[in-house]
This record gives sequence, C-alpha cells and structure tokens, in this order.
Amino acid sequence: MGSSIGRLILQKPGLRLCGAVGRRKERAGSDLGAILGLEEDLGIRLSADLEEVLAAAKPEVAIQATCSRVSEAHEELRSCIEHRVNVISLAEEMSYPWHAEASLAQSIHELAARRGVTVLGTGVNPGFVLDYLVIALTGVCLSVRSIRATRINDLSPYGPSVLRSQGVGLTPEEFERGVEEGTVAGHFGFGESVGMIARALGWKIDRIEETRRPIVSRAMRQTPAVVVQPGRTAGCEQRAVAYCGAEPVITLVHPQQVHPHLEGVATGDRIEISGIPDICFESRPEIPGGLATTAIAVNMIPHVLAAEPGLVTMADLPAPAAMMGDVRDLMATRFAGRAKGALR
Amino acid sequence: MGSSIGRLILQKPGLRLCGAVGRRKERAGSDLGAILGLEEDLGIRLSADLEEVLAAAKPEVAIQATCSRVSEAHEELRSCIEHRVNVISLAEEMSYPWHAEASLAQSIHELAARRGVTVLGTGVNPGFVLDYLVIALTGVCLSVRSIRATRINDLSPYGPSVLRSQGVGLTPEEFERGVEEGTVAGHFGFGESVGMIARALGWKIDRIEETRRPIVSRAMRQTPAVVVQPGRTAGCEQRAVAYCGAEPVITLVHPQQVHPHLEGVATGDRIEISGIPDICFESRPEIPGGLATTAIAVNMIPHVLAAEPGLVTMADLPAPAAMMGDVRDLMATRFAGRAKGALR
Repeated sequence: MGSSIGRLILQKPGLRLCGAVGRRKERAGSDLGAILGLEEDLGIRLSADLEEVLAAAKPEVAIQATCSRVSEAHEELRSCIEHRVNVISLAEEMSYPWHAEASLAQSIHELAARRGVTVLGTGVNPGFVLDYLVIALTGVCLSVRSIRATRINDLSPYGPSVLRSQGVGLTPEEFERGVEEGTVAGHFGFGESVGMIARALGWKIDRIEETRRPIVSRAMRQTPAVVVQPGRTAGCEQRAVAYCGAEPVITLVHPQQVHPHLEGVATGDRIEISGIPDICFESRPEIPGGLATTAIAVNMIPHVLAAEPGLVTMADLPAPAAMMGDVRDLMATRFAGRAKGALR
Repeated sequence: MGSSIGRLILQKPGLRLCGAVGRRKERAGSDLGAILGLEEDLGIRLSADLEEVLAAAKPEVAIQATCSRVSEAHEELRSCIEHRVNVISLAEEMSYPWHAEASLAQSIHELAARRGVTVLGTGVNPGFVLDYLVIALTGVCLSVRSIRATRINDLSPYGPSVLRSQGVGLTPEEFERGVEEGTVAGHFGFGESVGMIARALGWKIDRIEETRRPIVSRAMRQTPAVVVQPGRTAGCEQRAVAYCGAEPVITLVHPQQVHPHLEGVATGDRIEISGIPDICFESRPEIPGGLATTAIAVNMIPHVLAAEPGLVTMADLPAPAAMMGDVRDLMATRFAGRAKGALR
C-alpha cells in the first residue's frame, strides 16, 4: 500500500514526495526509487525513524499505512501532529475512531486542534463504500427506515497474510475456532461505518451484532497463495446489524472469499436504502479495494490541507474527487485559498 | 415544490416553519395549513412580500423554489442575505452559478461573505445525481480519462407546463422549431454539472456542446396531461459533451419522456467513469426527482448553518444526509457547534 501511494504521489503535479518511513529495518537506507520499482533513484532514503523524517523533510501531509487499530496508530499520529504535519491515516479504525477508542480519539482531536493540523481516517472500506456513499445517498431521502449495504469482493489477488486473517483454506471447525481465538479477524470497520452513518443521520445506535461465518466451498478454488478443497472455507461472510432499540436500522454485509464466481457469486457493491424514496445503487463488479484505497489516500490531500484543524471523518469533508490538475491550482480554485501552511 | 418542502419541514424535529412567500397574489393571506393540505391552521399566513416576511419572521434559513436562472434568483437572494438569512436555492443555475453568471455569482458571494451567511444551490439534478455523486465516485480513482453519466426518467407524473418545456406531444418539426425559438427549453443544468465536476477534479473545460433531439414515439403514449400519437415527440433527449482541447471528457445524457417503458426503455441513473479503476454505479429506477429535490433542500439546512459564509456548492460541503434526528442535536454532534446564528 505504501509503495502504490508513493508511486501515485510522484505522478501528481504539485505534490512532492519528501520522505518515507518503513518499519522493516533491513530496508532502511535504500533509495525509494528502488523500493518503488523505478528505474531511477529519487534521492530519498527509506528511513525506519519517523521522528527523524518529520524533522528533516518537514512535510505538509503524512499518509499512514501501517496498521488497522487506533491503539496501534496513535503514537505515529502524535509524532506527526507534534511536528505540525497533517495526517491521512488508512488504519481502518481511524475512519471513525470514536467507535473503538473514544478517549484516544478525543485526545488526538484536541492535540491536532491545538497544533493547527487535520487528521483524517479514510480508505475504500471503511471510509467510502459502506459509509460515505451510504450517507450521501440518504441525502435525497425525506426519511430513512433502514439501510442495507453489501460489498462482495474477491480475495484471489491477496497474499497469505490477508487470506489467513479471513480464514481461507481452513475447515469450518478451524474457522470457528479462529474466530473465537481472534486469528480469523475478518474485516475491520463495521463499527466505524455504523458510527459514521449514525452520526451523520442523527440515529442513536443501541447495539451492534457482528457475525463471521465460514463460506464453505463446494468447488476447488485455487490461487497462487492457497488451495481450497471442497468442504473447506473459501472465505468469511461477515455481517453487522445495528439496532435503534429493537429495530435493525443498519445492516452491513461483506462476504470476502477467493474466486466467488466459481460458485456463481458475482462481486459488487450494493447500497439499499428503505425510506422515502427507496434508493438502490449498485456497482458490478465491486470498486477494487487496493486501487481505491491508494487513490482516496492521495486524493484527500487537498481536503485535509483545507480542513479546519482537528480530527475529522470522510463525512465531514467536501466530496472526494480524483486529483487531475495541479494540486496548487486546486487549492486556489476549489479550496479557495483555505490551505493551512505552505500551500496557502 | 414549495408545499412539499413546507410539509417536510413540519415533520423535522428542531425545525420551525416561520414564514412563507408565494408569488401568486390571490393566495396571499391564506393560512399555510390550508395551502399545505393540512387539517389545521398553522397560524402562518402566506405572504406575497418577501421583505415583509424576512423582517417579521427572522428565519435562520430560507429555501428558494421560485425559478431556474441566477438572473431570476439573485434579487430574492440579495433580500435574504441583507437580512442575514442563509439561503438554499433550488434554481438550477444556482447549483454552480459561475457557469451562467460569473459576475452575479461573485457579487452574491461577496455580499453573503460580508453579511456572514451561506448561500447554496442544490437539487436532484443539477446538484446531486449528475455532478455531486459523479465527483464523489472519482474520489476512488487514481486518474480519470472520461466520465459518462446518464439519467433516464419518466415525465408521466408531470403537468402540462413541464411537458410543454420538454416538447412532449409535438411533431418532430415543431420540436426542432421549439428548440430554436427557446420554447422547448429541456433540462437546465448541464453547464452547471460540468462546471462543478471540472472544478472539483481540476479539469479545464474548453467548450461544451449541448444538443436536444426529439424522442419520436412509435407507440401511443398517454398521461392525464397529454396524448402522444405515434410519430410525435414523447420527450427530449438532451446531451452535453464537454471537451478538454479535442478530448471529450464529460458526457451527460438526460432523455426525458413520458412512459419510456412502452418502448422498452428502463429508467435509471448510471455513472460510468473511465479511468484507473473504471467505475460504474447504477440505480434502476432513477432516483425520483420531485421527492429527492424536496429532501435535499431540507437535509442541507444543517450543512448551510455550519458552513463558512459565502456562496458554496454541493461539492464544497460535507456529505448530504437524511435528517433523522433533532436538528439541534445534529448541530451539536455532527456539526460540532459550528452553527452560525441562533442554533449555535
């Protein structure tokens, strides 16, 4: 993810890649050009020391793609904020950090506001498909009774660590045990998506029921990283139902598996709103997760530069947009000179 | 439109309908309850005098649903702004007023900024389907080559004045003459949608080609307001193509007709983005225009109350959302106490 973000930044006029931090110490000191698979050196060395890079490179914005949880993200965030650097975090829980870690979220917010920088959590999901788009589509409703949003994707391109976390290749019994023991973690982000939707609409959610069920394959499904025999688990069907009182108001469904088409399952994103009017928007196939997360991380840079200081969510900012012009022109036109810092 | 907006406001906790202005003098003085079709009086009389209502009712927000053009809208807007009233305008050209009337837009912006209020143009289209949603979906693209967005709707519910403006029931020759003479006005808003998309992405548009063609019916199509014989026009297929240099980058297609299903045409909204990745989102049937415009006019009230003063577009504000809680709670939570005026 870090590499694809780096390559995209290099393509965007007006953005300058000024530093990179990687956790793997054995790569520290290598030129970023080689790490990004480019022909030429970039004159930027990968560092294992965030503080050092922040002090030397003095970036306007940092993109964090290192972890999933607020509790893992917050120390890096604090370092950036203390150096007065705006941050776009891809940690899933950061898309709506009040869900998992309300008090950490509050302290990040206060620190960012004090230092005059903005912190945003984003990504394709959570951050866009099952929350931002859902919220925006309710905007044309007189009222909403309930929401059901489904994202069916294909895990086939992913490597062993993602497949393991989704329980791919396990027996159904091993899958169930993995869920209990936490090794089959599934998707992070349902609570965050529910929280973002509920705050935007003004719903009070009383509880969220989340389930992970094995998708047991009837066919043999094979990828470079795994072979799933019939009777074994091709992936994880994860589901969250959020209740207002006894009423299930938000249902999020996210079955992730390898080669769903082998059993006639088409991938796609589908947002159904029961209300006045009913709304149903659908994309087939699904918005591809890796590309979309890379894109939105970079496309939100001008938004974050122009935003009020503090901790914000996708639902708080102007519509995301592909960045097709020079970012300096965008800051002057769309964002009307509202940039904080040097791009003002 | 004004009546349906009034009824919706009455249903939303935290909003208080405090005045109403109508252009038809013969209805002035009637109680709004009767005009909205309610059993009870509301104790609010319809007035034909905007200034009087603004001075007496002192609203926080006014919703303008009186016209299509900036040149028709701006005097009412100025009255509201001078009384320090925020405005949500449904005039199609107000969704991106710099397209039709750049200098009027600039002066509205300056006046609003000076008086500390926000002016927003919105609606289902322009304002949402063919611009806001398009922009938001490009947010998950590394780059965009071109955009094609189509809205196919059914004019059957509309009355004679809308049908006339779309050329329904004319011969193809009468239709072509109507286009030339301006009586077949078709859809207002393509230039505005193009302008909003282009500014958000940072594209420079060199020219827009707009065409209106008659949809000649092969079947008899009948509504309470019109009978279309075979060989006559069932509606208007309107299309805009916006170019960067020689490259057609935005194509908007909006065929409007009565009973499209009689010739096998399904209604729907479809947004196709050619880029990395390709995106295609689709809704069948289309988002219903009347309900959606009513909804978004009211749902944007908290956004406008919280926005920076000046003239803004849908692309500048946080995601629209159905207003399901008390608007005062929304201002305190989602909009974190940023309201201007009394709702602060």
